[in-house]
Amino acid sequence: MKIAYLGPEATFTHVAVQSVFTSDEHIAYSSIPVCMDSVAEGEVDLAVVPIENSVEGSVTTTIDYLVHEQPLKMVGEIIIPIRQHLLMSKGQVHRSKDIEVIYSHSHALAQCHTFLHNQYKYTKLEPVSSTSAAAKLVSEQPQECIAAIANEFAAKKYGLEIVASDIHSNSYNHTRFIVLQKEGSSVETNYFQKNHTKATFVIMMPENRAGALHQVLSAFAWRQIDLSKIESRPMKTGLGNYFFIIDVVMGYDDVLLPGVKQELESLGFSVEIVGSYSTIQL
Amino acid sequence: MKIAYLGPEATFTHVAVQSVFTSDEHIAYSSIPVCMDSVAEGEVDLAVVPIENSVEGSVTTTIDYLVHEQPLKMVGEIIIPIRQHLLMSKGQVHRSKDIEVIYSHSHALAQCHTFLHNQYKYTKLEPVSSTSAAAKLVSEQPQECIAAIANEFAAKKYGLEIVASDIHSNSYNHTRFIVLQKEGSSVETNYFQKNHTKATFVIMMPENRAGALHQVLSAFAWRQIDLSKIESRPMKTGLGNYFFIIDVVMGYDDVLLPGVKQELESLGFSVEIVGSYSTIQL
Repeated sequence: MKIAYLGPEATFTHVAVQSVFTSDEHIAYSSIPVCMDSVAEGEVDLAVVPIENSVEGSVTTTIDYLVHEQPLKMVGEIIIPIRQHLLMSKGQVHRSKDIEVIYSHSHALAQCHTFLHNQYKYTKLEPVSSTSAAAKLVSEQPQECIAAIANEFAAKKYGLEIVASDIHSNSYNHTRFIVLQKEGSSVETNYFQKNHTKATFVIMMPENRAGALHQVLSAFAWRQIDLSKIESRPMKTGLGNYFFIIDVVMGYDDVLLPGVKQELESLGFSVEIVGSYSTIQL
Repeated sequence: MKIAYLGPEATFTHVAVQSVFTSDEHIAYSSIPVCMDSVAEGEVDLAVVPIENSVEGSVTTTIDYLVHEQPLKMVGEIIIPIRQHLLMSKGQVHRSKDIEVIYSHSHALAQCHTFLHNQYKYTKLEPVSSTSAAAKLVSEQPQECIAAIANEFAAKKYGLEIVASDIHSNSYNHTRFIVLQKEGSSVETNYFQKNHTKATFVIMMPENRAGALHQVLSAFAWRQIDLSKIESRPMKTGLGNYFFIIDVVMGYDDVLLPGVKQELESLGFSVEIVGSYSTIQL
């Protein structure tokens, strides 16, 4: 099977893919939309992209592209712990007090805010497209006193030294990745259990109706269906117009979830169940 | 009065500040947290920072820093239309078909996705810290065939030419800015009407209780209080733990909003009303 992931190599998404899809071909794509396009166009069988971090919140590109641009089916969820380290070229390690620029993904810089504020208050922080790209950039300029924030895998891949480890602020720092498949695809994903434990709804409000969200939640609440997440995202039609993405703690069934969908649709909501799946927590 | 804003000069925040606080001193700060610290520490009287864009959604740094790090009072809201243009140095305009790198803030690059995909599919896109920083960077390298996406004010300030105007994808593209003041500060902000039309709540769930959000919304719904926004953000204590930021379409009163707060607190929620204010829409 071919698996697209948000590259370059040695990103956290790559770590998630390598841990689960041990015997498949992994192909790096340069952005989340391109990953998702590749599975929609049949270049690959599955795509793995980040959807939420426990500190930074949702990866809005993933949610927005899925809802507005490229409908795909969620067939699995992978959760991995995120550990960030400060990396330098071997020859520069003795100058770690005098780092001129620290490169990383903006989320990683934010996750390490406290460490950076305490140790590198006056050092320039430069956001780049991924933690892995930051490590690559540092490895390509061994004569410069610069550093990257990235994972251990990136340190190994680019031959960098870990100058400070586990520099992220929250000890509970995890990222959720979703596994996406083309609607109607018959590829079997045996990696995930058949007993689905979660389902994801995308719900659009009929108009800017007062109490509409309350109505939506009532449909879940009286059935005692637990929500593990609710997130509003802009409809892109104006401030104040949102759609909601809701994760429920049960898989698709024949009665309850179809009941929610039918009722809300009758009330004028647009309701899509974008996936029913199980979770692999590493 | 001294007003802190998210700089550098010529950002959209600067445009918002200049439009409203016409006769005050405006001081640029390099990041949203630093803006907010400056008002908390009394260096300035007010701070203006972005909180939401109609296309990209919330500015999570603002919400998270306000809730987790630096409590301040919201005393006003400014809404401005966002118009993005492609800018080049005058001497490079004839080479606009061969641009090598386009710099901008990551949100602006996302807002112009369709234009970029159609016209500059193979051009390298490079996120930098602000649209204004992108314009400055391009102006400093007039010999390079590079471009920035930024506003008209930045084009004027850095002497760049507009090569393509209004390249943002959604014609309805607005950003909301909030005006923040230190709790207990006596500075009068005469710029905003006394008739408050909005209030903002921050609500934390007592535990991961099923139906808790439904309960919160019920407290607003039966009083027929309209919500203009609800957003979940991570508590940073683990995937699945959120707080909610809720905007209601009424100002603080003596009965209804205190009633919501008291009831929810009795039920074990933590409830903070972080502001009651009016809006200036430009």
